[in-house]
Amino acid sequence: MNKQKATISLGLLGLGTVGSGTLELIRRNGADITRKTGVKIHTTGALVRTLDKQRPISADNDLKLTTNADDILNDPNIDIIVELIGGINPAKEYITRALQNGKHVVTANKDLLAQHGYELFNIAKENNRSIYYEASVGGGIPLIRPLKNCLAANKIENLMGIINGTTNYILTQMTKYEKEFAVALKEAQEAGFAEADPSSDLEGRDAAYKLSILASLAFNSRVDINDVHTESIKGISVRDIMYAKQLNFVIKLLAIGEETENGLALRVHPTLVPNNHPLASVQNEFNALFLTGDAVGEVMFYGKGAGSFPTASAVVADIMEAVRKISGQVQNGNIETTFDTKPIISMEEQTSRFYLRLKANDQSGVFGRVATALGDENVSLDMILQNQRSDGRAEIVLITHDTKEENFYRALDKIKSLDSISTINNVIRVLERGN
Amino acid sequence: MNKQKATISLGLLGLGTVGSGTLELIRRNGADITRKTGVKIHTTGALVRTLDKQRPISADNDLKLTTNADDILNDPNIDIIVELIGGINPAKEYITRALQNGKHVVTANKDLLAQHGYELFNIAKENNRSIYYEASVGGGIPLIRPLKNCLAANKIENLMGIINGTTNYILTQMTKYEKEFAVALKEAQEAGFAEADPSSDLEGRDAAYKLSILASLAFNSRVDINDVHTESIKGISVRDIMYAKQLNFVIKLLAIGEETENGLALRVHPTLVPNNHPLASVQNEFNALFLTGDAVGEVMFYGKGAGSFPTASAVVADIMEAVRKISGQVQNGNIETTFDTKPIISMEEQTSRFYLRLKANDQSGVFGRVATALGDENVSLDMILQNQRSDGRAEIVLITHDTKEENFYRALDKIKSLDSISTINNVIRVLERGN
Repeated sequence: MNKQKATISLGLLGLGTVGSGTLELIRRNGADITRKTGVKIHTTGALVRTLDKQRPISADNDLKLTTNADDILNDPNIDIIVELIGGINPAKEYITRALQNGKHVVTANKDLLAQHGYELFNIAKENNRSIYYEASVGGGIPLIRPLKNCLAANKIENLMGIINGTTNYILTQMTKYEKEFAVALKEAQEAGFAEADPSSDLEGRDAAYKLSILASLAFNSRVDINDVHTESIKGISVRDIMYAKQLNFVIKLLAIGEETENGLALRVHPTLVPNNHPLASVQNEFNALFLTGDAVGEVMFYGKGAGSFPTASAVVADIMEAVRKISGQVQNGNIETTFDTKPIISMEEQTSRFYLRLKANDQSGVFGRVATALGDENVSLDMILQNQRSDGRAEIVLITHDTKEENFYRALDKIKSLDSISTINNVIRVLERGN
Repeated sequence: MNKQKATISLGLLGLGTVGSGTLELIRRNGADITRKTGVKIHTTGALVRTLDKQRPISADNDLKLTTNADDILNDPNIDIIVELIGGINPAKEYITRALQNGKHVVTANKDLLAQHGYELFNIAKENNRSIYYEASVGGGIPLIRPLKNCLAANKIENLMGIINGTTNYILTQMTKYEKEFAVALKEAQEAGFAEADPSSDLEGRDAAYKLSILASLAFNSRVDINDVHTESIKGISVRDIMYAKQLNFVIKLLAIGEETENGLALRVHPTLVPNNHPLASVQNEFNALFLTGDAVGEVMFYGKGAGSFPTASAVVADIMEAVRKISGQVQNGNIETTFDTKPIISMEEQTSRFYLRLKANDQSGVFGRVATALGDENVSLDMILQNQRSDGRAEIVLITHDTKEENFYRALDKIKSLDSISTINNVIRVLERGN
């Protein structure tokens, strides 16, 4: 154990949005942070891409900017590395070298942790150092530590998260102002809530990375990113949103993890969420994680999942945790909880409720034929809507009870082949209605 | 530091609802708990009131029941005491003796912590032992640890909680089914959501105890229970709830803490909460804490605030934390965050929005006179309703903008003295409408 130090030194890798927020937050609340940790935190150096960029924080002469990672990674005075450059390379190499050089690591890098987390955690263990990653999921919302500690006595049965701000912003705008997807996307890009290349967000990959981190903690099991089934929100139209509204649902991109007798079910897809569910009121760029533990019952964590200061809030909390560890107040900050490798349930074997919107050529007997196709696969119906039409044809909206995915899709194939059906407009999963 | 032990022994004080839940949870999830902590947790003994009561847990021969606290407190094999008897005496003496005998303490006792917390934390410090109290507020919802750790980099600006399940259940039933208070209370008692003597819940004292614990952590300052202004929900009628609904509000008992330039403002009172606020959808026995940090922004924690297993979830998480400390994984579980004694702002100096319901004898010119009385005290109006009447007189509902409490009450005195006003039916504070 190290001796108590009066000052602990940070090295930042990356000085973008979150890096600047981290610096600013340590400065602004530095006095209280020192009182809480018992030591002064000093940011010694920061790795940047170019030195000649105008920066709001350049006023501080204390902070050495460098374009050479070695200046940070090899500096023996630096105790903690804060990795905020993102991506796999060179972040992975930097974190590895930092751990090998005896530094603790704080990171917000979900892609890296989801893909190479176990390797890096092992390197940390070998070097008796810790990796802190509260900021990797849900920005400033406390999620990682609650899962590791506060809810540790529970067997987590399932978790459902709105953990991608971009898609939630777009879906909220579509719902509120009846805008079509393309319009809402464009406006989200202009408002800074969607990137120029938004595909990782829209397709659910970003949420899948985060889900794999959360699920590995919640279910104490290794989760590979490829174990997560993902679906895009691109196919959602205002028409679906309006039908959902009529049936008292709102459409959200949910990341869902469940532990069943047969293993883990992991998926990210657009979902009809009942209006009375706490997740239904999570709007715009806000995130939320809703989970069920066998003891605690239903719990939800809500807040901003991204942004400079919300993310810095988690980064600095992690820095403080690392500081406490270095100064001897905490000896093992990283609690090992991923001791299993549980089987993964394929999507076909999972159960869901389904929303199905389709167009019929003619009305007579079409219900019967659709219902028969579903019934033949043991899919039963919960709700039926037919009160809206377009271009002279009847539009039908159905919501099924819980059914195995493969049964529903077999029935859907039959429905597609019916003469009386002209188009299958959309298929969206539906969350079970709460009490 | 103690050496790693293969088994750590618990002594329970109290084997009621939460005690039984705690035992059951440790048994049910014992294998995973052992994997997470690295040691086996064994419940050695439990203090009970009487030995001849039928208990579901008596099947376990391992657990020694006793009516003599000394058997637990003086047992050198017991490492952790779990205090679940509640109240001040003899819980305070037991906890003191346990700490002095070198045992760590886990407690769910909010009354004791709110009134004697500092004294007990000091005794813990002197004896190099810790008190864990996640279960004292919000049942199983992680609140204490997130405030101490996850949000530690933030200056918390304000917090608002629905932290009393009984009153939230009653208000929800009144809102949903338009039941009057007395009816809803009686049904809550029958359903087990209100005690035979519900006064501590109804008057806001229970919430005030919890608020004082949360506020001391959030604002890093000592808070005395007498610093918290409390008001009862008894005066709320279905009529108020219906008017609130018409104006897009729902009435909740909120515990509110704010840090301003002049100090801390602390209060518990019924409040009109805008429908679009995340707290508005917290129903029945559920609790939630909504807070704003200078970095993280708005965050909310939601779940069941009471009950056997939800509370046991927090108790066992604390036990696991204590176990980690004993087995040398964590050296200082209790982080000192209450380093200030900030001034308290009197209720008169605080600002609020107000809902005012009153009955006018005649309609002509009454608005003008009421508005003048308010305007003279610089209280401006946001909303006015007059579309409902009873017994021939006009009923008027007003909602003001933010105003100092003392200004509003001075204006109210003037309004009371107006000839044209027959009754002031109710005055309820109103939460600022969000975006």
